Amino acid sequence: MTILIDRRDLAFLLYELLDVESLCAQPRYAQHDRATFDGVIDAAQRLALDKFLPHAAKLDAQEPHFDGERVHIIDEVKAALDAYIDAGFLSASFDTEYGGLQLPYTVSSAALGIFTAANAGTAGYPFLTAAAANLLRAHGTDAQRRRYMQPMLAGRYFGTMCLSEPQAGSSLGDIRTRAIPQADGRYHLVGSKMWISGGEHELSENIVHLVLARIDGAPAGVKGISLFIVPKFELGADDAPARRNGVRLAGLNHKMGYRGTVNTVLSFGEHEACTGELVGAPNQGLACMFHMMNEARIGVGLAAAMLGQAGYRFSLDYAKSRPQGRPLSAKDPAAPPVMIVEHTDVKRLLLRQKAYVEGGLALCLYCARLVDEQAVTTDPAARDDIGLLLDILTPIAKAWPSEFCLEANKLAIQVLGGYGYTRDYPVERLYRDNRLNPIHEGTNGIQALDLLGRKVTMRNGAAFRLLVARIQRDIAAADAPELGEFASDLRNALETVVQVTMQLASTAASGKVELFLANATAYLEMLGHVVVAWLWLQQARCAQSALATAQGEDASFYEGKLRAARYFFRYELPQAARHADLLRRLDDTCMTMPVSAF
Amino acid sequence: MTILIDRRDLAFLLYELLDVESLCAQPRYAQHDRATFDGVIDAAQRLALDKFLPHAAKLDAQEPHFDGERVHIIDEVKAALDAYIDAGFLSASFDTEYGGLQLPYTVSSAALGIFTAANAGTAGYPFLTAAAANLLRAHGTDAQRRRYMQPMLAGRYFGTMCLSEPQAGSSLGDIRTRAIPQADGRYHLVGSKMWISGGEHELSENIVHLVLARIDGAPAGVKGISLFIVPKFELGADDAPARRNGVRLAGLNHKMGYRGTVNTVLSFGEHEACTGELVGAPNQGLACMFHMMNEARIGVGLAAAMLGQAGYRFSLDYAKSRPQGRPLSAKDPAAPPVMIVEHTDVKRLLLRQKAYVEGGLALCLYCARLVDEQAVTTDPAARDDIGLLLDILTPIAKAWPSEFCLEANKLAIQVLGGYGYTRDYPVERLYRDNRLNPIHEGTNGIQALDLLGRKVTMRNGAAFRLLVARIQRDIAAADAPELGEFASDLRNALETVVQVTMQLASTAASGKVELFLANATAYLEMLGHVVVAWLWLQQARCAQSALATAQGEDASFYEGKLRAARYFFRYELPQAARHADLLRRLDDTCMTMPVSAF
Repeated sequence: MTILIDRRDLAFLLYELLDVESLCAQPRYAQHDRATFDGVIDAAQRLALDKFLPHAAKLDAQEPHFDGERVHIIDEVKAALDAYIDAGFLSASFDTEYGGLQLPYTVSSAALGIFTAANAGTAGYPFLTAAAANLLRAHGTDAQRRRYMQPMLAGRYFGTMCLSEPQAGSSLGDIRTRAIPQADGRYHLVGSKMWISGGEHELSENIVHLVLARIDGAPAGVKGISLFIVPKFELGADDAPARRNGVRLAGLNHKMGYRGTVNTVLSFGEHEACTGELVGAPNQGLACMFHMMNEARIGVGLAAAMLGQAGYRFSLDYAKSRPQGRPLSAKDPAAPPVMIVEHTDVKRLLLRQKAYVEGGLALCLYCARLVDEQAVTTDPAARDDIGLLLDILTPIAKAWPSEFCLEANKLAIQVLGGYGYTRDYPVERLYRDNRLNPIHEGTNGIQALDLLGRKVTMRNGAAFRLLVARIQRDIAAADAPELGEFASDLRNALETVVQVTMQLASTAASGKVELFLANATAYLEMLGHVVVAWLWLQQARCAQSALATAQGEDASFYEGKLRAARYFFRYELPQAARHADLLRRLDDTCMTMPVSAF
Repeated sequence: MTILIDRRDLAFLLYELLDVESLCAQPRYAQHDRATFDGVIDAAQRLALDKFLPHAAKLDAQEPHFDGERVHIIDEVKAALDAYIDAGFLSASFDTEYGGLQLPYTVSSAALGIFTAANAGTAGYPFLTAAAANLLRAHGTDAQRRRYMQPMLAGRYFGTMCLSEPQAGSSLGDIRTRAIPQADGRYHLVGSKMWISGGEHELSENIVHLVLARIDGAPAGVKGISLFIVPKFELGADDAPARRNGVRLAGLNHKMGYRGTVNTVLSFGEHEACTGELVGAPNQGLACMFHMMNEARIGVGLAAAMLGQAGYRFSLDYAKSRPQGRPLSAKDPAAPPVMIVEHTDVKRLLLRQKAYVEGGLALCLYCARLVDEQAVTTDPAARDDIGLLLDILTPIAKAWPSEFCLEANKLAIQVLGGYGYTRDYPVERLYRDNRLNPIHEGTNGIQALDLLGRKVTMRNGAAFRLLVARIQRDIAAADAPELGEFASDLRNALETVVQVTMQLASTAASGKVELFLANATAYLEMLGHVVVAWLWLQQARCAQSALATAQGEDASFYEGKLRAARYFFRYELPQAARHADLLRRLDDTCMTMPVSAF
C-alpha cells in the first residue's frame, strides 16, 4: 500500500477546481504559493507513509488497553506523533502568531487528511488536540491560551472534547455533569462522560479536557450548559503540571474500528475533587463548542472521503495486478487469464468507488474553500452569503461522504474478494474505521434534521435559494456540448428539488412539523446527490476544458474524470428522483408505524 | 440478547405463507406434523441460546490460532458442537435411513438458521460437515458412504469443501491441484487450496476433505476437474483412522468476521504422499460439487437473512428500552425523554431492517419450499417447472439477502449509535460476519452473470417466463382493496422487467455478449427487488386476510407485516425503475472505461 491518495486528483481539486492559489493574492496568505502548499502536502505524505502507515494494522490488532493502572499504547504511536509534532503538523493549521503555518484551511485539510488515510487511529490524537486548542484560541482568556493552548500546540499537552454522557449521547440538553462554584472562581466538576477519545494515555505530559457541564442552578436543556477546562494534572504557579486532578479513567470502550484512538469513559470528582475553570461565559458552552462545528463536521466528511480514497486506490492497484478469469467472449480455457480490472463488473466496483470518493472529497474541499473565503472576505453581504452556503452544505458534507465513502470501502473489499475479507489487506480495516463516521459528530439522522428542519428553512430559505442559484450558475456555465447531458440532468434534478422543497416548506408553515420532517433522511440523500452531481459537473467542466491540450497520463486523468462524472450522472443521480417522489407524497409510513407493530 | 429471531415471524412464514404442514400429506413427510416441526425449532432455539450464543463474542475475540503444531480453539466450541451432535442436529436434515429426521428442507433450514443467528462461527463446522456428507450421499459409493459419510453424520468426522486455490478464487477452471493415478486405483494429490473453512482443528477424530483436482492429462478448464475424498487420517482395514495423510496446514487466514470458523490454506502432498479417492466419474467433479449448488446458495442467503434478523431484533429491543431525546414538537427541555423507538428516523431504521430481513428470509424459505416440492413431485412437467423456478431464483436468493441484510446490520449499528460501534454489543459482530456473504459461494458479481447470462436466457427464457407467470398469478390473487397499491406497483414493475429483459435478450441474440451483460448486477438488483416485492405482496395478502379475525398481539403482528410491505413498496421497489432505465439504455459506461483512466 504505497499509494494512500491520488496526488494527481488532489492537485486537480486544489488548483484546477478550487483555485486555492488565488488565495495567495490575499494578505493573509501572501507568504504562500503553490510550491509551499505542495511542500506541506509532500511532507505530510512522506511522514504518513514513513511513520503512520507501517503500524496501522498492528495498532488495530493491538489496541490500547488498560491494566487497571495505566493505558498502554504500542510505542510506534508515540514515535509517529513525535515526528508529526517535530515536523510542525500539530500547529500547521494555526496562524503564524501561534507558531502555525497560516495555511488556507483547504490546504491544511487536504494535507492532514493524508494521515487519516494512512492510520486514522494514530491521527486521532493530534487532530483532537488541534481542535481543542482551536477552541481555546477562540474562546479562552489570554492566560488560558498561554497556560493550555500553547503547550498543546507545542505537542506537550494533548486535548479532548468531553460532550456525551452515558445517558445522553445525541441529546446534549440532557447532560448532568455538575459544575459547583468554588470561592476562588474555579469549579468542582462531578459527573461522568462517555465516548471520550484520547481521554487517558501517557503520550503527553498532560491532557486538557474541554468539558460541558451545568453550573448549579443553570436553566434546563441546552441553555444551561457551560464549558470548562479540566486538566489531567492541575498546573502549579510556574504553569507546569503539578497535581493529579480528580478526573479518572472509568473504563475503555472497545470499538469495531478506529481502534488506535483510545476511547474512554471518564469520571469527574467521584473520589477526589476535580477542578475546572470556565471557558467563555456561563451557559454559553454549547455556543462555544459549536462555534467550530462547521469545520468539525466538514472534517468528519473529509476523513470519510480519505478513508474511501485509501480503499479505492488500494483496490485499484490490486485489480491491476491480480490475474483471474477471462473476457466473457473468450472460449479457450487454456488462454492466459486477464487482470481482473479488465472485467466489466470490476470496473463497475472501481468506477462507483471513484465517483463516491472523488465526489465526496470535492464536496468537503469545496466547503473548506468556503471557510477560507469567509476568513478573507470583508464585504458583509458576500461574507453572509458564504456563511449561508456553509450552513446548508455542512450537514451534507458530514453525512454524504460518511454514507457513500463507507459504501466505497465495502466495494473495495469486494474487488479483493476473499482476500479483502482478511486482515492481511487494509481494506477491511478501512471499512471498519469508516463505519464510525455516520455516527459521531452528530449522527446522520441528526444531520438530516439539521438540514431540513433548520438550514433549508432558515431566514425564509435564504441559504437554500443561494445554493440553488449557485448550482444554476454552474449549469449555465457548462455550455460545452460534451457536458450537455450532465447539465440537463442536473437542471431537471434541481427543479425537482426546488418543487419538493417548496411543498415541504408549506407543510412546515402549516404546523405539521413531524410530517414535514418525517423523511428528512431521504431529503438529505436527495439534496446530497444533487450537490455531489453539481461538484461532478464542475469537475467535468474543468476536465473537459483541460483535455483540449492535455497529453499522455494527463489526458487519461481528465478522461477518467469525465467517465466518473458520467457514471455519477447515469448510475447515481437518478436516486434523487426516488427520494423526491417519497417527499412529494409526504409519506408517513415510518412516522405512523405503531411501536407494537414492530 | 435473548431474542435471536422472531418466532412469530418464523411461524407466519412456515405455516401461513408457505403452508409447510401440507407437505405432511406426502408419504415422505407423513411422520411429521406442525408439532414435530415446532419441536425441532424449539430445541434449536434452546440449544442456540444455551450453548452457541454465550461464547459468540468470546470466540470472535479469541479466534482459532495456530502455534506451529496445533490449531487451538476455545473449549466452548467443542462443548457446543458435542451438544449439537447429541441433540441430533448434524444429521437432522438427512433421511431416516441415514439416521436423520427426514424433515422438509424448509423446516430444517429455518431451525438450523437459528444457530447462525446465535453464533455463525461455531455453526460453521457442522454445516460444512453436513454439506460434505450430503455430497457423499449423492455421489459416493456404498463403501465411501459407510467409511466417510456415516462417521460424519455421527459427528465423529468433520468435513470440508476444497475448491479455491490461491491463484484461482472465482475461476475454478484454473485450478491446478494434480491427482496422479496410483496402481491401487487411488490418487496422489499435489497442490494447494485456499479459503478452506474447518481445514484443520482437533474438534473431531478425522477431517474429510472433498477436493477438486485435475487427473493428469485431463482437459483444460472446468471440463477436466474431478472430485476426491482426502481424509486427514487415512483409514485402516478396520475403517478407523490409522495414518496421517499428506494434507497439511500451510497457514490460517485471519478474517474480519466469521472468525470462529477456522479458515485455512492447505497443502497437499508437499512433503509426503497425500492419498485421495475419486468420487463419481473422472472429470465430473464440478458437476458433483454443483449438484447441491442451489441448496448451498440458498443457504448463504438464509445465513445472511438470519444474521440480519439477529441484528434487527437486537436493535429493536434496544430502541424500545433506551430513553433519549423528545418528540420534535416537544418544547420543554425538562420533560422526560422518550424511548428512541418513538423517533421517526429510528422507526425508519427499524422498518427498513424489517423489510429487508423478513423479505430476505421469506425469499430463502420460499426457495427451500421449492426444494421440498421438487423432492415429492412426481409429475415430470411440474417437477421441471419447480426446477426452472429454483434455477432462476437461486442467484437472487444468494445475492439479494447478502447485500440487503448486510445493509440491515449496518442500520442496526446506527440504531445503537456509539454503543453499536463497540464490541460490547453484538450488532457490529453481526455486521462483520455478514460481510462474508456477498463474497463466498460465488461472489454477487458472479451470481449476476449466472442470473442474466444463463438462467434468464436458458431454454428460450422458460424459467423467466414461468417466474413472471407466477408473479402475475399472485398479483391477480391480491384482489383485496387494501392490497391494490401493492398489486398495481408490482404489476408496473414487472412489466418494466419484462420489457427490459426482452430488449436484453435481443442484444444477446445479436451476439453483443459483453454489452448484454454489462449491467448484470443492476439486472440482479432490479429483478431481486421485484421478487422480494412479490414475496412481500404474498405476505401482505396472508396478513390482510388473517387480520380480519386477529386480536391483540396477533393483530399487531399482521399490522406490522402490512406496514413493512408498504415500506418496501414505497421506499424500496422504486429502485427497480432506476436499474431498468440503465439496462434499457444498454449503458456501456463501465464496460468501455479504459483502465488507464482510473
